[in-house]
Amino acid sequence: MSRRLRFNAFEMNCVAHQSPGLWTFPGDRARQYKDIGYWTDLAVILEKGRFDGIFIADVIGSYDVYGGSNAGALREAAQIPVNDPLQLAVPISMVSEHLGIGITASTSYEHPYLFARRLSTADHLTKGRIGWNIVTSYLESGTRNTGAALKAHDDRYEVAAEYLEVIYKLLEGSWEEDAVQADPARRLYADPAKVHPIRHRGRYFDVPGPHLCEPSPQRSPVLYQAGASRAGIGFAARNAECVFVSTPTQAALARYIAALTEAATAAGRRREDFIVYTLATVIVEESDAKAQALYRRYLDHVSAEGALVLLSGWTGTDLSRYAPDDLLSKVTTSSGLSMLDRFSDQRDWSLADLAKWAGIGGAGPVIVGGPETVADQLEAWQEATGVDGFNLAYVTAHQTFENVTGYLVPELQKRGIYPRDYAPGTLRQKLFGRGDRLRAPHPGAGFRTLASTFPDPPLVPPFL
Amino acid sequence: MSRRLRFNAFEMNCVAHQSPGLWTFPGDRARQYKDIGYWTDLAVILEKGRFDGIFIADVIGSYDVYGGSNAGALREAAQIPVNDPLQLAVPISMVSEHLGIGITASTSYEHPYLFARRLSTADHLTKGRIGWNIVTSYLESGTRNTGAALKAHDDRYEVAAEYLEVIYKLLEGSWEEDAVQADPARRLYADPAKVHPIRHRGRYFDVPGPHLCEPSPQRSPVLYQAGASRAGIGFAARNAECVFVSTPTQAALARYIAALTEAATAAGRRREDFIVYTLATVIVEESDAKAQALYRRYLDHVSAEGALVLLSGWTGTDLSRYAPDDLLSKVTTSSGLSMLDRFSDQRDWSLADLAKWAGIGGAGPVIVGGPETVADQLEAWQEATGVDGFNLAYVTAHQTFENVTGYLVPELQKRGIYPRDYAPGTLRQKLFGRGDRLRAPHPGAGFRTLASTFPDPPLVPPFL
Repeated sequence: MSRRLRFNAFEMNCVAHQSPGLWTFPGDRARQYKDIGYWTDLAVILEKGRFDGIFIADVIGSYDVYGGSNAGALREAAQIPVNDPLQLAVPISMVSEHLGIGITASTSYEHPYLFARRLSTADHLTKGRIGWNIVTSYLESGTRNTGAALKAHDDRYEVAAEYLEVIYKLLEGSWEEDAVQADPARRLYADPAKVHPIRHRGRYFDVPGPHLCEPSPQRSPVLYQAGASRAGIGFAARNAECVFVSTPTQAALARYIAALTEAATAAGRRREDFIVYTLATVIVEESDAKAQALYRRYLDHVSAEGALVLLSGWTGTDLSRYAPDDLLSKVTTSSGLSMLDRFSDQRDWSLADLAKWAGIGGAGPVIVGGPETVADQLEAWQEATGVDGFNLAYVTAHQTFENVTGYLVPELQKRGIYPRDYAPGTLRQKLFGRGDRLRAPHPGAGFRTLASTFPDPPLVPPFL
Repeated sequence: MSRRLRFNAFEMNCVAHQSPGLWTFPGDRARQYKDIGYWTDLAVILEKGRFDGIFIADVIGSYDVYGGSNAGALREAAQIPVNDPLQLAVPISMVSEHLGIGITASTSYEHPYLFARRLSTADHLTKGRIGWNIVTSYLESGTRNTGAALKAHDDRYEVAAEYLEVIYKLLEGSWEEDAVQADPARRLYADPAKVHPIRHRGRYFDVPGPHLCEPSPQRSPVLYQAGASRAGIGFAARNAECVFVSTPTQAALARYIAALTEAATAAGRRREDFIVYTLATVIVEESDAKAQALYRRYLDHVSAEGALVLLSGWTGTDLSRYAPDDLLSKVTTSSGLSMLDRFSDQRDWSLADLAKWAGIGGAGPVIVGGPETVADQLEAWQEATGVDGFNLAYVTAHQTFENVTGYLVPELQKRGIYPRDYAPGTLRQKLFGRGDRLRAPHPGAGFRTLASTFPDPPLVPPFL
């Protein structure tokens, strides 16, 4: 196929992710997030639907901008309670063969020497199906609880850049390709001359190395990032292989992709070196009428409070200070922009209407219809923006993804724009078809050759 | 049964754990530690053998005392490479119903606010089968790599005590028992009035809370500890529910248990409030002759270098500075004690002989024979020391545990001193039969009532 659409599933180890209130919908399974069966059932549905991967979001802290308290977030289970995403990766890999598994982790909390081991372990145990969604931002309450506060002169992307450099050095540069011999005849597991310290001394981290783990199938996991600020785009342009975007309008998406492509080109990378997934929520049924009816039933379960709790956190603006009838054009966010600017192709609706709309799938578009209608709209989005695929949020678990797999995917396959089978190999090989490892001009690939520049460690003669 | 023996399996996410060189034994699977099938196959064997649990050790860093270099450790795969133990927990729970899963983690690296979430998540996903092996010590190279160096005046057990206090407050005290309502009719997930900040302000950590996770089946995981120093015994006496001991002689074990019991009594706890497992390696076959023959074949594969690499790390003494013929009585450890003191019931053997002996199963006894011989010896150990059970190291994977399950367990069951089935419930309930949660006089239980002493958080009126 010359053109193709891609799907990624957007999940989180919590009850209410992007559609607050929908956990009350009859039959919804979101409350089962604490049961491993919730996740393994989902993995089977997504692999049947040939999703590129499942991406598990995360936050450390709680949404407490709304009303200056976490009370609303707790009532609505709006991303709190929230469990560790990492521990879902290997279980998901055990019930699937191809599905990519993207884990979110911040560069603000765990030390890179320890986090590098988590990544290598996950990549080993999943046989190279791991992605890392690099996040730099965090909720204020997460900062308070971990003492991770940055000094005023620090830039969080500067910390992230050094963090990533340490990760690259450990994963790419510390163990040479043939360091592990695992040869019983010579009783030699690893050749010490081929396992190197990294001797990193930086502004934020000093890490002599070596890495604790032998090279995993992909070495560095597939690198995901979502960063819409100028610094975020610069970071993604240099490092991200998959980029997540969240915007309700085609115009904003097209602008974002143009800016990202320009920045990536400046960094020596090409458009085909990264994949862009845009957030969307698809409500598909066997007919337009049935889908619209389902959408209306969903709307009855939206929690306006939950939506405003999330919107307040995302915009840094306490929306509890406004009345339901207040128009969006009146609301100014903490960054000084009008809320309307964010939703500029939309009408100047009231906060109550915005809450209702954003309560289904968050800030991305909601696409409702039978298989043909939805397929037409997704193609139109791709046509207008050049986006590669969609990061699909769910409304109810797992009905949303079951319907995508059951109704929409066959239609897209019929049109020849969606794969019928997975490509073989690691996640990186499946996504880009150019091998398991990072390749130039990606900066991570440059650290692999560092190994040969290190002096050999001292060798001790064998004892007996 | 009035008396009973318990087994725990001692593992590590690496190639050579306690028996260096044995990865070269024909058919050994240790090199498959990177494959999840290695772990799931093992879990099935252990559950068939009614083991209390599997306990996954860990180190951060490498054994570089021997020769002042990690070269020996790398050649022998002596606990390096070493992967993250945490990611094995949920997969092991997926193929077993009862087996306890003990994860090792140090109080020196990950912030307790984040680690508390890892524990709760694991306990949720395994439905209450998680134990945490609390370690405070760490290898020098781990310290260098993470910037975790303690200041001279800090005591690592003082840090650990405060770390544990934060964990108790988050896991036991932050969410009241009925905080989670998950009631679709009232659209109330958690009652904010029952989710409390912990407001911890200490010497090492400031953690306002609340905990990010709702209460898991056990809240605090079952607490394991191995600490032989005076401070370690004091810490274990106050906090540990399961204690691991590693000593080659019955006399030393009896002394340790007496000291621990005395310290626990002083802390208001009784002997039945904790379980002591002592390290042992069992080589069992269908007859004494076959077992002895297998032991001799194992000895041919021991790596003396690997054993000395580990012994050098454990004692802080560079044993590469001695000749193979040097007698143990000549060797003084970094703590000023003669190595002979540690192995005082043993003869004054040469370093070469010590390496050979410690190369099977590390510092614990090696018990070789047919089912009756081994059962007799284990009973004798229990008789002489009052130990509750054995933390069994493996020689080859998974032959050692297959043979224990296949030959030894039926003999112990026949004698009526080993369970034929698991008790129902969480790991804590299975081990102690007194409920899922920590109970007084355990100090962790005291933090559960803290909840009611906190003022309620501010409440925001519902939006619509």
